[in-house]
Amino acid sequence: MKRSIALALAATGLALSLPAAAQEFDAAGQSASAMAYPQLFASEMALAEEFVNGMIAAGITVPVPADPGGGYTHEQHKRNYRAMYLAGHLYQLTGEERYLAFVRDMLLEYADLYPTLGDHPARANQNVGRLFWQVLNDAMWMVHAVQAYETVRDDLDTADRQRIDDDVFRRAAEFLSVDSEATFNLIHNHATWATAGVGMAGYVLGDDDLVHRALYGSAGDGEAGFVRQTELLFSPDGYYTEGPYYQRFAMLPFMVFAGAIQRNDPALRIFEHRGGILVKALNATIQLTYDGYFFPFNDAIRDKSLNTAELYEGVAIGYSVTRDPALLDIARQQGRTVITPAGLEMSRALAADEAEPFQFRSMLFSDGPDGDQGAVAVMRSGQGPMHMAMVAKNASQGMGHGHFDKLSWQLYDRGNEIVRDYGAARFLNIEAKEGGRYLPENETWAKQTIAHNALVVNEQSHFYGVRDLADTAWPTQHYFNVEDGFQVSAAGIDSAYPNEGVSMTRVLAMVDIEGLSQPLALDVLRAQGTSEVQFDLPLHYSGHIMRLGFDPVRNIAGRPVLGADNGYQHIWVDGSATPAPDQGFMTWLLDGRFYTYRFVPSAGMEVILGESGANDPDFNLRREPLVIQRVSGTDSASFVSVLESHGLYDGATEQTIGSNSQIASLHHVRSHGYDLVFIETLAGQEVVVAISWDNDPAAQHSVTIEGREINWRGYAARVPLGGGDDT
Amino acid sequence: MKRSIALALAATGLALSLPAAAQEFDAAGQSASAMAYPQLFASEMALAEEFVNGMIAAGITVPVPADPGGGYTHEQHKRNYRAMYLAGHLYQLTGEERYLAFVRDMLLEYADLYPTLGDHPARANQNVGRLFWQVLNDAMWMVHAVQAYETVRDDLDTADRQRIDDDVFRRAAEFLSVDSEATFNLIHNHATWATAGVGMAGYVLGDDDLVHRALYGSAGDGEAGFVRQTELLFSPDGYYTEGPYYQRFAMLPFMVFAGAIQRNDPALRIFEHRGGILVKALNATIQLTYDGYFFPFNDAIRDKSLNTAELYEGVAIGYSVTRDPALLDIARQQGRTVITPAGLEMSRALAADEAEPFQFRSMLFSDGPDGDQGAVAVMRSGQGPMHMAMVAKNASQGMGHGHFDKLSWQLYDRGNEIVRDYGAARFLNIEAKEGGRYLPENETWAKQTIAHNALVVNEQSHFYGVRDLADTAWPTQHYFNVEDGFQVSAAGIDSAYPNEGVSMTRVLAMVDIEGLSQPLALDVLRAQGTSEVQFDLPLHYSGHIMRLGFDPVRNIAGRPVLGADNGYQHIWVDGSATPAPDQGFMTWLLDGRFYTYRFVPSAGMEVILGESGANDPDFNLRREPLVIQRVSGTDSASFVSVLESHGLYDGATEQTIGSNSQIASLHHVRSHGYDLVFIETLAGQEVVVAISWDNDPAAQHSVTIEGREINWRGYAARVPLGGGDDT
Repeated sequence: MKRSIALALAATGLALSLPAAAQEFDAAGQSASAMAYPQLFASEMALAEEFVNGMIAAGITVPVPADPGGGYTHEQHKRNYRAMYLAGHLYQLTGEERYLAFVRDMLLEYADLYPTLGDHPARANQNVGRLFWQVLNDAMWMVHAVQAYETVRDDLDTADRQRIDDDVFRRAAEFLSVDSEATFNLIHNHATWATAGVGMAGYVLGDDDLVHRALYGSAGDGEAGFVRQTELLFSPDGYYTEGPYYQRFAMLPFMVFAGAIQRNDPALRIFEHRGGILVKALNATIQLTYDGYFFPFNDAIRDKSLNTAELYEGVAIGYSVTRDPALLDIARQQGRTVITPAGLEMSRALAADEAEPFQFRSMLFSDGPDGDQGAVAVMRSGQGPMHMAMVAKNASQGMGHGHFDKLSWQLYDRGNEIVRDYGAARFLNIEAKEGGRYLPENETWAKQTIAHNALVVNEQSHFYGVRDLADTAWPTQHYFNVEDGFQVSAAGIDSAYPNEGVSMTRVLAMVDIEGLSQPLALDVLRAQGTSEVQFDLPLHYSGHIMRLGFDPVRNIAGRPVLGADNGYQHIWVDGSATPAPDQGFMTWLLDGRFYTYRFVPSAGMEVILGESGANDPDFNLRREPLVIQRVSGTDSASFVSVLESHGLYDGATEQTIGSNSQIASLHHVRSHGYDLVFIETLAGQEVVVAISWDNDPAAQHSVTIEGREINWRGYAARVPLGGGDDT
Repeated sequence: MKRSIALALAATGLALSLPAAAQEFDAAGQSASAMAYPQLFASEMALAEEFVNGMIAAGITVPVPADPGGGYTHEQHKRNYRAMYLAGHLYQLTGEERYLAFVRDMLLEYADLYPTLGDHPARANQNVGRLFWQVLNDAMWMVHAVQAYETVRDDLDTADRQRIDDDVFRRAAEFLSVDSEATFNLIHNHATWATAGVGMAGYVLGDDDLVHRALYGSAGDGEAGFVRQTELLFSPDGYYTEGPYYQRFAMLPFMVFAGAIQRNDPALRIFEHRGGILVKALNATIQLTYDGYFFPFNDAIRDKSLNTAELYEGVAIGYSVTRDPALLDIARQQGRTVITPAGLEMSRALAADEAEPFQFRSMLFSDGPDGDQGAVAVMRSGQGPMHMAMVAKNASQGMGHGHFDKLSWQLYDRGNEIVRDYGAARFLNIEAKEGGRYLPENETWAKQTIAHNALVVNEQSHFYGVRDLADTAWPTQHYFNVEDGFQVSAAGIDSAYPNEGVSMTRVLAMVDIEGLSQPLALDVLRAQGTSEVQFDLPLHYSGHIMRLGFDPVRNIAGRPVLGADNGYQHIWVDGSATPAPDQGFMTWLLDGRFYTYRFVPSAGMEVILGESGANDPDFNLRREPLVIQRVSGTDSASFVSVLESHGLYDGATEQTIGSNSQIASLHHVRSHGYDLVFIETLAGQEVVVAISWDNDPAAQHSVTIEGREINWRGYAARVPLGGGDDT
């Protein structure tokens, strides 16, 4: 029994009706006319035709698996599944026999090959694949190949159909769900791919057992399988615990399999499950970007943007479910879609000018299945590609790809990442770099706390770098509020250093100051331990140093390494200083804009200027600057900093304005359990950010500092003290 | 006597007729209508109005000079001359009285200030200015202010006119041409600005003496002055000896003053002087770019592109003289123009769709007034922003801003500079960086030979870093030829190291190889001295190391400095190796493209991997990688290298192809005085580049290597040996 997309859609007759598109897809393209397609869809078809025709011309090549990621056989099998997927849909659209023949003949080659395969020779870990070095890639092959097969299966002769059913898809489904049962039953994106592949094979082959296994796990009890994954892998806000890079990757099998479920088992109402979690997750994926690029949390590849195949599929299916005109805006930015009925429907709506701007907003995304395992806070100021965004990563560990970076943050401005997250130490699919796998420096640097904008105690990473420990605890998001001129996130964690008993709390805020062109990024971090320790607060910034408020002792004729382990071994030390109270600032230049990082030097605080790249024998690391505030021999510390975006350097016109910070002073006062940060501009404007640490929004707070009474309500507030032209 | 632009044009009645435009400018804008202007011109007017209206609203501010470059008074006087220049032209276009009043009132303020001025308090060298810290800026002020004055002078009352004539322009002309006579009579771009300012003041004030002085120098004998500058500062090919960054800067006074001469003294036929050298120079300025950016020869600021005010003016005047439709293409790329009659004429032609593509071509630009002081060779492959360009800098020293980089080269590909020139160590107008002046590292690094892709002997710079010595000698361009599949430049110099008697010859070529997507960049450098020396050949590249053919001893836990002086003190050493014959290569990744630098390791050759940034106490240097081929204890050496652009890394689609070099081997054979470079691809294609060093294009050469007879004609040739699919 084949249930074609179109027939299935016709049968469901419900929300995601695609009548016009479905009809064209109905009779293998007999009524389709490329002329009738909207521009986006037509150009996507042309891309597909170009690729598939090239593959057809080159002749079918199904090599015996040999190479790891990036190697020849790896890339060839990837090309093959992509070509089959596209050829199948082209067959649906055009009815051209050669597309059918291509999919059929290639699958017959796979039918020859598959039964001969054992474990892949380039296996790197327990999760070994057959066609690929890891089972994940086999599952990806399956997800694509089975969609291709669905488009042609009814039109094959019985013998071919039987061979492909038995020697390709039943065997692959057996491999993914039985031989690789451990992976299959995980609550993890690898399992999402596997269950999607197996479940869709079940629909195509008419094998209800495969479908049930995919939906509810091998045991059939719903403790594993696709449905449970939708319940456990996303928070109630649609945040995926591994982070947006993996969320993007997982969205494809989630959306594609959900689409198949909707067509084949509409009674399951999969898109309404858990309050529409899949659509929430799709929206979260899009929100967790800046300038189109995903926040590179955890083991993220930094080049990944919304312009990625997984999201062309996800946006099209998402639109078919929601008709949300903001998704059309995303498709327009992507400039790509998929040549499926959902892609066609979306392309038509876009061509009909139905798009509305997607609103990137300040939002809090809770983490954890119940939303109580920390959160990611996103604060934005302005609109468009140049807007400022501040991101607080207060989420849980995020499984094996998680980094030890509790309460870390990032700042984006004018299209650039100003306060950086390193992402993964990996060159995806570049064979010369460990076959494209994670590099050793991913463990020794990228995951370590010092490689993030997070507090380090005694040169050890959070949870001592032990994932099992990290999995057991997460920050608490204390507060998040967005109002005009003041956005604030507050979170804390007291379990990152159980041995030292250190609890830390961090307030990150975007604060408007009269007379400044952009908000200040304020960072107030308090740490309290039970014994004397060393606190290091690194800031990984982007830019070339223009001015230092302090006068460092410089290592100019030999460059030592900062430490021995936990990432410290990768830091070259350029210099260090012990700044006086008014010397706590540095200015750098990036892409024509100046940035001043200003901090309150506590007594004896050391400032260390460094760069990543030491102890890197294979040139695996990027070389990027950082500055560390270090306080030693104390059981508590407060770090108060602001980052200011200012001025303009235009080399083309030789114009330079505002190259110096507009802030005159930054002070921190702790009084009666309150923290107050006083910020004064050169123009005389003064603002205090007052933190009560009291979550009662109605509670009124008051404190008198140097004769001035400061009054505010709630957890934290921006209190203008006036000055400048106002006084 | 005022000669307005329009009247002057009407009077000339010759080639550069601007009838329509001139009429509108004639009667102070009474017939002008913004609605009638083409889009480019109208938007330029709108920009001018916005800026000038802002300046008018802010009130006239003419501060007492105090600050160096980038400081407040410096920037304010720059803003003032720009505002006057624009306001004057807006007055011409609109006839609005307030623009007249703004120019008049500001000039009256200058009339108050100017007589009180002595040397600028922030003087940095002998060439001190009055309004600015250097006389150059005073000349720039004059060039702009006098054009503004020309637009309003006839409409002022007698008293104001007299005051401004006497207390501003006569005094400024006196300062520039008499008090600063030494600068005024130089053959140098600073003198071009000064003579342009003084000469145009002469036309506006009707002072023939000023005009004559400007045209023919203080002595009036034509050994100095503007006309002589057009004869000595450009080569017959229009190359300006300081390099394109300064050429761009000089083009404004050259073109603007030439335009004024053409209007006022048409009989001089200034644009036809020396075979139309000014137009040739304008074209050379444009040709010496990649992706719009100037080749950063010598003390260049790397951000400078064709999008610069000097060239908006130059392109407009150039078009008014030549009607060259390719200049319209440049204007279109700039998206800017000037609100002068020439700008209007050009905007109209552009709006009338008369533009034709500007052809960036492979060209040789001779250097020196007689074209015999070396040359710059530009080889290009492909078209558009992604094309490949190879640049050989075989020019003369280029005066005080020249770098010690004889026979250096650069490579551009896919929008990026792959083999780099550092340019100047300077942050223009950034006060925190030495007031925006040249940094100490400009002398200790940027000018030194090791900071370029040029051969270093005994860790000394060319001419031992002595400019006076460098001024006396230059390379000889032996050969330049462009044919299908093979472009080649050959040059030599035997005077860069007079003490060691080293002569060096370098062949740079772009070589097509069957099966490769882009030409190879071939570099054959031969050096012969009279005693044993150390030869260092650095390559400054852009990218992240992916693969090394050799296995270096790495400095991973402490980073030493390469040397003590001549730029070596600024190089951190990452490692070094002594590669075996088949180990001479390294691959890096930049912007999704792989680049393999492959070289022939001679016996005992050491390879040093390093990075700039050592001994840089103020963080003034960019940190950029380099590789050095070092051969010691020999009186001669041959360095043979190819740079290959290959493959694709697309992080968005996770596709990686061709990450490994497609070259199987690179061999160099010297036989019978010939040099032969054998290049073989993995696919089996073999090409030999044969160099006879014989400039006779008809001479036939033949040599037998390992039983294979290689035949070619002329200086150098690409000889395919076949192989691959052909055999």
